[in-house]
Amino acid sequence: MSHTIRDKEKLIARVRRLKGQIEGIERALEAEKSCGEILRQLASVRGAMSGLTAEVMEGQLREHVLHAETETDRQRGGEELIEIIRTYMK
Amino acid sequence: MSHTIRDKEKLIARVRRLKGQIEGIERALEAEKSCGEILRQLASVRGAMSGLTAEVMEGQLREHVLHAETETDRQRGGEELIEIIRTYMK
Amino acid sequence: MSHTIRDKEKLIARVRRLKGQIEGIERALEAEKSCGEILRQLASVRGAMSGLTAEVMEGQLREHVLHAETETDRQRGGEELIEIIRTYMK
Amino acid sequence: MSHTIRDKEKLIARVRRLKGQIEGIERALEAEKSCGEILRQLASVRGAMSGLTAEVMEGQLREHVLHAETETDRQRGGEELIEIIRTYMK
Repeated sequence: MSHTIRDKEKLIARVRRLKGQIEGIERALEAEKSCGEILRQLASVRGAMSGLTAEVMEGQLREHVLHAETETDRQRGGEELIEIIRTYMK
Repeated sequence: MSHTIRDKEKLIARVRRLKGQIEGIERALEAEKSCGEILRQLASVRGAMSGLTAEVMEGQLREHVLHAETETDRQRGGEELIEIIRTYMK
Repeated sequence: MSHTIRDKEKLIARVRRLKGQIEGIERALEAEKSCGEILRQLASVRGAMSGLTAEVMEGQLREHVLHAETETDRQRGGEELIEIIRTYMK
Repeated sequence: MSHTIRDKEKLIARVRRLKGQIEGIERALEAEKSCGEILRQLASVRGAMSGLTAEVMEGQLREHVLHAETETDRQRGGEELIEIIRTYMK
């Protein structure tokens, strides 16, 4: 991922928030919160994961396809993104 | 969707198979098959839907980004794909 | 699926609407609508599929677990639902 | 979540493994790994999340429905699970 430093920092911040949410689930389990409560937290993590995944896919598209330096790089970046989409959709 | 005629025919064939699967679920409900059986068929339709969605996304990427005629078209096709990915991931 | 006749009719009506949506996608492909438009329709079918799946799972829970006639039936209905949830979540 | 202590420990162990995977993604971002690599790790977390969610739903079904102490508790536990399934499927 050779994205700009700024994008990288943003992504790392998101991953850290995600880790915080996971720790929240750990604490909720320790505190024997209700299944319903645990599942609400899991749903919230799932949403955050999807948002993060969309952002990384968008990064791949911008960096390695739209702003590719050569036509060869662009085709390679595009094939990688297709592979990524296929894997995700399975 | 200005994809090649060949791609279009392939996609239409997939959508028709999907319709056939949906009709199978209708028949299974009429015949009062078990919930487990109905849900297996629903899971199979879900898989087919994801595969079809991946194929249309791939089409958007190839046609409107990788093989765009002008740089302006490419940027526009890319922004559309980003919008599509975000919507799908929500 | 031994649900009440009324539930069965409701489910069949939902499956028919789903088939109508799939036919809409077929027409959109024939009319060479944009990828974005096709993908919006696919997303809408995906939502309808999830709703239907949730309804069939709910039916299994109500009919074969909550309202099971014997304790043995209830345990069996519960194990089937667990199997269904596991398969769905894979 | 009043599940048995043993189940609770198992769930907490799974959540901790999940946290470890998230930390792996953080490290991969720091090390500027490729988008494809990051997305593979994200897909792996997504799988682990789904498995964990299925296990918590299964716990709700076993504890609060199948093994409910009174019929009133069972109906309440069942309605909660239906609510959970609907939310998850949205």
